[in-house]
Amino acid sequence: MLQPGEQGKKRVVTLTTDLGVSDWYVGAMKGVITSICPETTIVDITHEIPRHSIETAAFVVSTCFQWFPPKTIHIVLVDPGVGTERKAILLEANKHIFLAPDNGVLTYILDKDVKKVYEITNTGLMLPNISKTFHGRDIFAPVAAHLARGVPTNQVGPELSKESLVQLNILTPRVDRNTLLGAIIHIDTFGNIITNMPGEWIKKVGEAPQLFHHSTKHALRRVETYNDHSGLLLLVGSHGYLEIAVAKGSAAAKLGANVGEPCKIVWRG
Amino acid sequence: MLQPGEQGKKRVVTLTTDLGVSDWYVGAMKGVITSICPETTIVDITHEIPRHSIETAAFVVSTCFQWFPPKTIHIVLVDPGVGTERKAILLEANKHIFLAPDNGVLTYILDKDVKKVYEITNTGLMLPNISKTFHGRDIFAPVAAHLARGVPTNQVGPELSKESLVQLNILTPRVDRNTLLGAIIHIDTFGNIITNMPGEWIKKVGEAPQLFHHSTKHALRRVETYNDHSGLLLLVGSHGYLEIAVAKGSAAAKLGANVGEPCKIVWRG
Amino acid sequence: MLQPGEQGKKRVVTLTTDLGVSDWYVGAMKGVITSICPETTIVDITHEIPRHSIETAAFVVSTCFQWFPPKTIHIVLVDPGVGTERKAILLEANKHIFLAPDNGVLTYILDKDVKKVYEITNTGLMLPNISKTFHGRDIFAPVAAHLARGVPTNQVGPELSKESLVQLNILTPRVDRNTLLGAIIHIDTFGNIITNMPGEWIKKVGEAPQLFHHSTKHALRRVETYNDHSGLLLLVGSHGYLEIAVAKGSAAAKLGANVGEPCKIVWRG
Repeated sequence: MLQPGEQGKKRVVTLTTDLGVSDWYVGAMKGVITSICPETTIVDITHEIPRHSIETAAFVVSTCFQWFPPKTIHIVLVDPGVGTERKAILLEANKHIFLAPDNGVLTYILDKDVKKVYEITNTGLMLPNISKTFHGRDIFAPVAAHLARGVPTNQVGPELSKESLVQLNILTPRVDRNTLLGAIIHIDTFGNIITNMPGEWIKKVGEAPQLFHHSTKHALRRVETYNDHSGLLLLVGSHGYLEIAVAKGSAAAKLGANVGEPCKIVWRG
Repeated sequence: MLQPGEQGKKRVVTLTTDLGVSDWYVGAMKGVITSICPETTIVDITHEIPRHSIETAAFVVSTCFQWFPPKTIHIVLVDPGVGTERKAILLEANKHIFLAPDNGVLTYILDKDVKKVYEITNTGLMLPNISKTFHGRDIFAPVAAHLARGVPTNQVGPELSKESLVQLNILTPRVDRNTLLGAIIHIDTFGNIITNMPGEWIKKVGEAPQLFHHSTKHALRRVETYNDHSGLLLLVGSHGYLEIAVAKGSAAAKLGANVGEPCKIVWRG
Repeated sequence: MLQPGEQGKKRVVTLTTDLGVSDWYVGAMKGVITSICPETTIVDITHEIPRHSIETAAFVVSTCFQWFPPKTIHIVLVDPGVGTERKAILLEANKHIFLAPDNGVLTYILDKDVKKVYEITNTGLMLPNISKTFHGRDIFAPVAAHLARGVPTNQVGPELSKESLVQLNILTPRVDRNTLLGAIIHIDTFGNIITNMPGEWIKKVGEAPQLFHHSTKHALRRVETYNDHSGLLLLVGSHGYLEIAVAKGSAAAKLGANVGEPCKIVWRG
């Protein structure tokens, strides 16, 4: 359990949601946080997660959180099951705190150094009236603000086992002689295809690499930057994973690639 | 009149505008606020109000403001009449302060506990050069920042009567035996149709409710959450009003509904 | 060289990028800044610069920066050449600090009161691992945060001459008897056409002004606000330049105008 911070010490709360920024939802969450803990620094990671895309939010938060200071509180709100029996959870990992519905959105955080998992049940840390449709405002925002004020994480509710949490069903990446096998876990703003294969695996890739996708072969060119190359590029993205890109274009559009699909890289054996 | 805060005490300024976030406008407003009162916490509610949609901004700010701390200063800038004779106003209600053009954008705030209304005329609180086209930067931002620094609200200009303000012409909701009658005041990001009928009226709704809209009848299903239901749903939204929704779809698109239209709910009498 | 601020004194860092807000990129930059200098106030100017549009970013930052407090640090990240030999630069002008790739994005700042230019080479102020594809996170964000903490600007690297910097090739505006000649430097969110001709030149414009664009003549109406006028309007925009607009419409769409094109205003001589 993280120790309580000093009362009022400035803490960071990040927001990753699919609420969009054209409506009143995000404003209400920020209002609640600011009312309970005015010293909080609120940072928008994004509110433009495609609606209900648990996969996208899972990738974005797992790639982003590490750049924030220890003890940052990350709210990850993609919540198609709001109002149903799905749990609200708090997870401590790598000295960061994550608040989210238990729907798989923290899947990639579970690979990190997880210290504790709690179910959020303490209504004393929530708004007095809890709607059935907007737990971002009524539960996650006030709990985050109380944590920012120094409430210890073990006050949110009973401990859960890490194993009990809902997880995305994503192919575990593996190396098999002259083949890397993994899954597409994200298509970024620019159409770059991000896999779950670790960047260091690029050293294993031999001569004349090819991408197998949708049972079609595509020649890959191993590069270090997006510039001055044509065709499909294979590189280590700034997120640390293997990435397929097209210089000044969209690899995802070119290949018709989607999140969740398997993806195989084969070279001359 | 709100009493002056202590000089430099951290105050919140929220922004609700139709300026978009792809240009320099919002940045200029934030620069002005930060220059005059660096301690201010600036919170974007949204800059994606549809251009010139006074109705949308009126709904968003009235739904959002209550979640912020008392003495928060809300700038509501949807200003098709900038540079004309329209007044700039300051309104105090429910311990919050609202700054806006007098064009109806504060209509729903007028239903709250309004303490004072002022016309903003004190050029000493504005930028030295006032453009004819961007009062957000030249008037509203600097006035908000001076208020955040502790200038009392009655320094902005002469008092106005609440009755003199411009208001949106929206049907007042009413109950009539087996009928609720109201107006559509907002279509949210997800296509949910939000009416101006108070949420508690759902208790009045009897058997087999139907929606009358565009002289067509639609069966409604009374629910508490968006999940696991098909057809048109009637529920109390997280904003506290009656709402018509479609699970994982857009009710507004399905019905061709627009803001301002009347909306009638009838049940078996 | 700007003198170091006191350690921990609150400084403003603004962000102008083409990264969009739907992905993890901006969040990572903010995390880095917050980790190194938690007291920083981070202000988004925009992340919606059209991808790789150096011209748009150049206009936006030059129009916006002046409204921020002295010593504000402006990161301008439109960086198609990331990972190539292009330099990273720091520029001091009008008591503000600008960090950007050396690709012309600071062109209009070079017209201001430039005090110093440095190449950013000090790896001690950068992240330990520098990717080839995201210098926003690895170089510009940490350098900005160290400056915000009080590191003097001359610590970032060797001095450069202003003349050595890459500049956009934009027609210098000029007056020629009954003609104003300039270039389109920005199309704003609303489709207004912004030229690089100074606003005060409107006093030179005589009777029956006409716009020459794409070898077509268009009658112009000189106005002070967007309201109550039809046809093409000529006015001084809130940015201080001459602007061509259409009331409640897009002048750029009407004329098929694009950034970089020449633009001539002629009147009865």
